[in-house]
Amino acid sequence: LKIVTGNSNPALAQEIADYIGVALAECQVNRFKDGEVQINIGESVRGSNVFIIQPTSAPVNEHLMELLIMVDALKRASARAINVVIPYYGYARQDRKARARDPITAKLVANLLEKAGATRVICMDLHAGQIQGFFDIPLDHLIGMPILADYFLDKQLEDPVVVSPDMGGVTRARQFAERLGAPLAIIDKRRPAVNVAQVMNIIGDISGKTAILIDDMIDTAGTITAGARELLNRGAKGVYACCIHPVLSGDGVQRLQNSEIKEVVVTNTIALPEHKRIDKIRVLSVAELIAEAI
Amino acid sequence: LKIVTGNSNPALAQEIADYIGVALAECQVNRFKDGEVQINIGESVRGSNVFIIQPTSAPVNEHLMELLIMVDALKRASARAINVVIPYYGYARQDRKARARDPITAKLVANLLEKAGATRVICMDLHAGQIQGFFDIPLDHLIGMPILADYFLDKQLEDPVVVSPDMGGVTRARQFAERLGAPLAIIDKRRPAVNVAQVMNIIGDISGKTAILIDDMIDTAGTITAGARELLNRGAKGVYACCIHPVLSGDGVQRLQNSEIKEVVVTNTIALPEHKRIDKIRVLSVAELIAEAI
Ligand SMILES: Nc1ncnc2c1ncn2[C@@H]1O[C@H](COP(=O)(O)O)[C@@H](O)[C@H]1O
Ligand SMILES: Nc1ncnc2c1ncn2[C@@H]1O[C@H](COP(=O)(O)O)[C@@H](O)[C@H]1O
Repeated sequence: LKIVTGNSNPALAQEIADYIGVALAECQVNRFKDGEVQINIGESVRGSNVFIIQPTSAPVNEHLMELLIMVDALKRASARAINVVIPYYGYARQDRKARARDPITAKLVANLLEKAGATRVICMDLHAGQIQGFFDIPLDHLIGMPILADYFLDKQLEDPVVVSPDMGGVTRARQFAERLGAPLAIIDKRRPAVNVAQVMNIIGDISGKTAILIDDMIDTAGTITAGARELLNRGAKGVYACCIHPVLSGDGVQRLQNSEIKEVVVTNTIALPEHKRIDKIRVLSVAELIAEAI
Repeated sequence: LKIVTGNSNPALAQEIADYIGVALAECQVNRFKDGEVQINIGESVRGSNVFIIQPTSAPVNEHLMELLIMVDALKRASARAINVVIPYYGYARQDRKARARDPITAKLVANLLEKAGATRVICMDLHAGQIQGFFDIPLDHLIGMPILADYFLDKQLEDPVVVSPDMGGVTRARQFAERLGAPLAIIDKRRPAVNVAQVMNIIGDISGKTAILIDDMIDTAGTITAGARELLNRGAKGVYACCIHPVLSGDGVQRLQNSEIKEVVVTNTIALPEHKRIDKIRVLSVAELIAEAI
């Protein structure tokens, strides 16, 4: 068993290797002067069962190409099995033709990984479970929600209510609420007529309670901060937020910082660069969960 | 026949479309906030013969992913044929295992393009002709060298000699010399012993002549500027340089600017951003050559 990492999340790879009790295999992923990916695998991998840890988070095209080229190099070096561990699956939101002539990039990525030579995939909290069916090779789909739930159980919040920020996340929120033994509420956004501002309805009772917003990812944080404001306006006592994947593009971190949300709990499927680490964001590790699946 | 372009070289795509006498098809290639590629194809392509103009120059991973996602979208929109026009083929130098456990990224790229759904490839002056064999779909390999040669023929230089900057480029230089009706010389770099500086030998007569250095690409310009200096040291009267692909990474442009080379003639297979356009670099167009192949 050998574990290698690209440049996306070497800290997570190291944690996983430590948990398993092996050293990371010798593998440098660099760039030539013109920006082309250069790989140096420093030890034999012939006949090995290799795990590449590489979430395809931003810059997604760089991290995805690194992953594909690593798979290619390992294949040509006669690795026995090439397991790609993709804790955050980039392009997951482009999973269907929402409009005419859209690409289905999540499926393209699956095809590219298989073509390059991946033999098994491990991923976590896919934006849509259907992406599992985009692969013809074995895929393990890990669920990080219990890690978030256990954190909030430990906190012993008074009178909590789990809130799904939209209709799409209801199933995830329901499971989370069950684990917490808390009731569920749902924010339902509607546009009453064309050219009329969206209004938020809240289904369920949140008045006087401590709300925990849960989503699979927080990207620009627009949805989650608007939801938090509405919950407070309608009488929630306080608001927490959590997600598995801290995408945090654009002004995401700034929005969270400026929001009324008390704490934002995320995981390390995506590495947070220094400037995105603020006190309000609490990071839990998925290393053990992944290590157990390896 | 429809022509679309990604963000790599829209000016070349427009020139090609103008030459053929069609408008570029409606297609926007943008980014979501998190950097994922977003494509909007604004018109029907059902049953069409589509040409995508997209050199995979730097940033190569961005331009390659744009190309793959465009191919995916066109395929799912029922285009009849998807021709990928790649005037500069990124990763062409990673075309064999030069060291143990190297990837063969040029082959990986070929596999990815086919998997995505490309049905034909048009490319130009591949770093190695063997890359043609990496594809199982039809491929046209255009040669831009005559465009450079005709430019120098027009110049009517006195007593010219064509010089290959290394042994790898001898065949290309020989053809160029033939077309110019000029003699050939070769720079031969050798390292007499380990830990001894490389020395340059010049095979052929250059004394008192005007040298024209020719290569397929100029990247950091280290080879070409060192060659030029050596030619002048050995009595050449003046030095010109030319190449098809102006990769020009790192300090490439600066090196050319500071060198004794009189003029550097390149083509527009790779778009030069504003800061790389200096008077000394003369850009010739390959639009007509490509348009004739379409
Ligand atoms: N990287 C991205 N950032 C924001 N929106 C995206 C991204 N990728 C896809 N989308 C859009 O998100 C929508 C799908 O999101 P969802 O309804 O949550 O599954 C589609 O309309 C996509 O075009
Ligand atoms: N983008 C690149 N920039 C510089 N060198 C490269 C690049 N890609 C591959 N190479 C190296 O260039 C050598 C092949 O170049 P050549 O001998 O001219 O075919 C190999 O040793 C490659 O590792």
